[in-house]
Amino acid sequence: MSKKLKVGVIGAGRIGKVHTQSITYHIPEAEIKTIADVYIDNAKDWANSMGIQNTTNDYHDILNDPEIDAVLICSSTDTHSRITIEAAQAGKHIFCEKPIDFDLDRIHAALAAVKEAGVKFQVGFNRRFDHNFKQVHDLIKAGKVGVPHIIKITSRDPAPPPVEYVKVSGGMFLDMTIHDFDMVRYLSGSEVEEVYAQGAVLVDPAIGEAGDIDTAVITLKFKNGAIGVIDNSRQAVYGYDQRVEVFGSAGCINVSNDTPSSAVLSTAEGVIGEKPKYFFLERYMDSFAQEMKEFFDAIVNGKETPVTGIDGLKPVLIGLAAKKSLEEGRPVKIEE
Amino acid sequence: MSKKLKVGVIGAGRIGKVHTQSITYHIPEAEIKTIADVYIDNAKDWANSMGIQNTTNDYHDILNDPEIDAVLICSSTDTHSRITIEAAQAGKHIFCEKPIDFDLDRIHAALAAVKEAGVKFQVGFNRRFDHNFKQVHDLIKAGKVGVPHIIKITSRDPAPPPVEYVKVSGGMFLDMTIHDFDMVRYLSGSEVEEVYAQGAVLVDPAIGEAGDIDTAVITLKFKNGAIGVIDNSRQAVYGYDQRVEVFGSAGCINVSNDTPSSAVLSTAEGVIGEKPKYFFLERYMDSFAQEMKEFFDAIVNGKETPVTGIDGLKPVLIGLAAKKSLEEGRPVKIEE
Amino acid sequence: MSKKLKVGVIGAGRIGKVHTQSITYHIPEAEIKTIADVYIDNAKDWANSMGIQNTTNDYHDILNDPEIDAVLICSSTDTHSRITIEAAQAGKHIFCEKPIDFDLDRIHAALAAVKEAGVKFQVGFNRRFDHNFKQVHDLIKAGKVGVPHIIKITSRDPAPPPVEYVKVSGGMFLDMTIHDFDMVRYLSGSEVEEVYAQGAVLVDPAIGEAGDIDTAVITLKFKNGAIGVIDNSRQAVYGYDQRVEVFGSAGCINVSNDTPSSAVLSTAEGVIGEKPKYFFLERYMDSFAQEMKEFFDAIVNGKETPVTGIDGLKPVLIGLAAKKSLEEGRPVKIEE
Amino acid sequence: MSKKLKVGVIGAGRIGKVHTQSITYHIPEAEIKTIADVYIDNAKDWANSMGIQNTTNDYHDILNDPEIDAVLICSSTDTHSRITIEAAQAGKHIFCEKPIDFDLDRIHAALAAVKEAGVKFQVGFNRRFDHNFKQVHDLIKAGKVGVPHIIKITSRDPAPPPVEYVKVSGGMFLDMTIHDFDMVRYLSGSEVEEVYAQGAVLVDPAIGEAGDIDTAVITLKFKNGAIGVIDNSRQAVYGYDQRVEVFGSAGCINVSNDTPSSAVLSTAEGVIGEKPKYFFLERYMDSFAQEMKEFFDAIVNGKETPVTGIDGLKPVLIGLAAKKSLEEGRPVKIEE
Repeated sequence: MSKKLKVGVIGAGRIGKVHTQSITYHIPEAEIKTIADVYIDNAKDWANSMGIQNTTNDYHDILNDPEIDAVLICSSTDTHSRITIEAAQAGKHIFCEKPIDFDLDRIHAALAAVKEAGVKFQVGFNRRFDHNFKQVHDLIKAGKVGVPHIIKITSRDPAPPPVEYVKVSGGMFLDMTIHDFDMVRYLSGSEVEEVYAQGAVLVDPAIGEAGDIDTAVITLKFKNGAIGVIDNSRQAVYGYDQRVEVFGSAGCINVSNDTPSSAVLSTAEGVIGEKPKYFFLERYMDSFAQEMKEFFDAIVNGKETPVTGIDGLKPVLIGLAAKKSLEEGRPVKIEE
Repeated sequence: MSKKLKVGVIGAGRIGKVHTQSITYHIPEAEIKTIADVYIDNAKDWANSMGIQNTTNDYHDILNDPEIDAVLICSSTDTHSRITIEAAQAGKHIFCEKPIDFDLDRIHAALAAVKEAGVKFQVGFNRRFDHNFKQVHDLIKAGKVGVPHIIKITSRDPAPPPVEYVKVSGGMFLDMTIHDFDMVRYLSGSEVEEVYAQGAVLVDPAIGEAGDIDTAVITLKFKNGAIGVIDNSRQAVYGYDQRVEVFGSAGCINVSNDTPSSAVLSTAEGVIGEKPKYFFLERYMDSFAQEMKEFFDAIVNGKETPVTGIDGLKPVLIGLAAKKSLEEGRPVKIEE
Repeated sequence: MSKKLKVGVIGAGRIGKVHTQSITYHIPEAEIKTIADVYIDNAKDWANSMGIQNTTNDYHDILNDPEIDAVLICSSTDTHSRITIEAAQAGKHIFCEKPIDFDLDRIHAALAAVKEAGVKFQVGFNRRFDHNFKQVHDLIKAGKVGVPHIIKITSRDPAPPPVEYVKVSGGMFLDMTIHDFDMVRYLSGSEVEEVYAQGAVLVDPAIGEAGDIDTAVITLKFKNGAIGVIDNSRQAVYGYDQRVEVFGSAGCINVSNDTPSSAVLSTAEGVIGEKPKYFFLERYMDSFAQEMKEFFDAIVNGKETPVTGIDGLKPVLIGLAAKKSLEEGRPVKIEE
Repeated sequence: MSKKLKVGVIGAGRIGKVHTQSITYHIPEAEIKTIADVYIDNAKDWANSMGIQNTTNDYHDILNDPEIDAVLICSSTDTHSRITIEAAQAGKHIFCEKPIDFDLDRIHAALAAVKEAGVKFQVGFNRRFDHNFKQVHDLIKAGKVGVPHIIKITSRDPAPPPVEYVKVSGGMFLDMTIHDFDMVRYLSGSEVEEVYAQGAVLVDPAIGEAGDIDTAVITLKFKNGAIGVIDNSRQAVYGYDQRVEVFGSAGCINVSNDTPSSAVLSTAEGVIGEKPKYFFLERYMDSFAQEMKEFFDAIVNGKETPVTGIDGLKPVLIGLAAKKSLEEGRPVKIEE
């Protein structure tokens, strides 16, 4: 067995823990040397249980460790671009959670630093690595639907986040829809030119009072002429609803929700199937492991990462255009 | 057996024949006395084969026949409003194919004539009587999805109509989407306030040259805050794609396509189900019979018809707004 | 329109009414002249409502009417073979409900009479005309599953019949499974050689006290080496369960149940589809009309009927073998 | 982290490698210290790549290692009972692949040795840990189908094993159907009383020449009155077909096949879903990990193992009765 890649994880929140587990249990090619978190005391026991001995509340300990090859930036969004710049300057390969930043200038600065340092950089759009969506992508690439005409994404959460989170989330388009903006790019093989967003507060008035929406339908015009449409809700009572449909000149592909089992119960009440897997930790766990595998593969084998800096930038551009569209009640071009 | 209602059919084209068959074979309470068509010679043999003895090239023969209780207006769209007025003045109950007219003034004139005559008037939005869509409607009414938030309609034809037809069709929104505009009203229980239409010519450039589009995504804002989205294509190579999804505070309803059989064939190539029923004659045949039954039931039992004059007017208003939206590249309010 | 075939219906019970409706509403090529029933007074109003003027309590009135071309024998099973013989001798074409008789000698006598008279004879195995099962048959014939290896039929009623009926039904194998015995012949294209039946009384002890079973699994050995298996229950609480699976060297075909609509409701409780169509009147109505059409087509166009006398005999043979197998607890050859 | 359990793996064939991977990547509570195989040279590189340093061609090195807590017996079937006895005498906890033996006396001897030693003993019926089948089991236990009446298992391999393997496999019933015999016990909550087996050689004549069958339908009578039916084929061209249906007084549960993704492609050719996951390594990988987890959990927490010695014995008894039934062409009681 060749030498394992040494990894530092910055941010021991929910997503930091997900990646730590993936690497520990599923990726023999890498190992986590150090975990940093500003509140590291809360995470020490957990880190030990995973067999990770070094913990710190200062992520610079990771950046300054010459043994560490790569960092995962899983801290709060407002720190992503800054830590990306520092990590690049320290010569670390970088996996950065989405979004890189809400601010375009800061994204550009981060990407410039990465480019100058020549390190690998991957953004955490994990859904590209999901078995269903990857299959849609591959079937499109294989020409099975011909030229795509209409791309539809349904993306609904099982329950809204706390209102406190909503306030700092950057708004639904940058927090939740951003995954769908990435997905339409991934599937269409084309860039979005124009966005028209309709939004409403139908789930919880408190979300509206916090200045956000909880329900939206966004239509997108692609450079290649295709039309996209995304519908979002912060609350689907039946669980996490994650579907895609791509319609084209030669056919149509649909993917439906994954369920815990295929059991269907027929009774006097009806024919009852299972609800979708509850939320992203259940639904996308395999994709989180897969994106890690491909990140390390890019490092070890000198490949381009499968989700690049541009892939991190574009969905933010679309999200900002969607926000403007909603505010001004009109379609908005991305180039604006 | 009580006395049968006597019916005159005006227009012996495709839809006139459908209604004639429904009445002859499925509705014992009514019988067709006379069929009129400007090219009646082409339809005489067929009329005889259905056991209908009176044929004429002048629909006034029907209007002037005191024995006839009701007329079906199945002639070309540009004659609908005029014949409606004449039939109302002749005291006939009226079933009029959609749309009543492309011109709002003429629709209003027709509806006024109906009102003054006090005759029954029903518009041919047959999909309301389809087993799938009616079930969606009934489940919504029963509160199964709670408050509707998002209403999605997929409506795609198997093949585009001849370009000559496209030229006189009133445009895709008034010819094809009009059924979907009716359906969103039927399902939402609310009125459309604003429309934003995106359209493209992706199927056949000749349709574009004829001044129309063949692919569209239309978003709708409802009075009750819900959002609607309709996607249309003139060509789904796998057949007639007719689906609906209604998402609300308590759940979501989906209806999928009907197929000729439920057979699924698993082979080395894959797991292969049947394509949807080919087109509207296969897919909606039962709904055509059902709308006739309810029309005659309204006459015999003095009920309101299930699709009223207002129901005929509103989808035209939405269609005209969609047209304007497409031309001007902005959301358009219905009241404009 | 050519002259309509004149039909007499013998037996105005449930199935006699079904055929009467089919002919009246769906088959313009034939008309019912007379209906006979020993308790005709109960059926007179109904017959009038269908526009049939002649009613009688003596079916000989039908056999003696030279105008009548064909008879439908829908009376109680114990009269089928006798009336068949008389009708054949009267030169009428015969549609006879299943089974022809419980007694083999009487079946042979009836078939001999039919042969001598040279009249058309069709047995009421309507499921062959069902859209699902016909599609399975056609796919097999087209070679889509290759050589059939295993044929599985699930056939479960929504609720058991009254115990009084059970007592005179001839037993579950001859009353209910007989349809499945016909179906395996229709699908396999081979004859059953040996039967092994397992039965149990699990639904209602009263059925056991009446000397019958209510649950069974029957395995069948075909001449061509394939294996068949049928499972039956007199009570599926979720409704009429009618499925088939044919597995072969090149693939597998499955047909599932028909439902009133394709609506699927997703709620916090689960993803809920509709139950199967309730019972045979809902599920097989189209097949009843279709078998009539093909019967009249065979008469008018001098074709062989699609379900012949042999097709009526063989399932009785299999059913009797199944009965013997259950009694003696061993596989039984048909030729025994 | 508490001290890891130390494990020895005996047999480095396909299934031995599966368990090794499960433990290495998915079960932090245990680690493999030593792997033994008579042809260990073939497996050394692989063992090293998994981070396992000790390899041996003599499994006694494992039994004699006082540090090792538990052994996995993954060697050829004819060695299972002997190694079980030796391992029990060495005080090791035992996970033994199925079947324990083809010979009942040797099974009893093995179980006696386990009992005397007081060690944990689990048999490798992994399908009990599959998400689909476990859900069926749990729904039955929760009373969702009421009293089970009919239990149906479809179990078909994608391709037959080499004829050389067939010759030493113990026959299809003990090699392949044995999993299904375990499954009916697991699901029914009752014991099989009588078996009737029909078999045929329809896939490959060479299998018949080797004295085995490749296609079978087996019916089972349970102590509680329910009826079971299993159908098997050595070759389903569309892939590994693994389904279950349990029908009871209150409803019916079905599980269908797992697929690599939920993608459905609609084209002019049809509506095409994916084939089942190819074979047991794809289909049951999670269940292999889960059975390991529960084995170690039983050791650490002093619980009964979820698949006991009796659970290993009973399917062999049923399999032997099925063999006899096939040979003698009659139903055979288990107690014979």
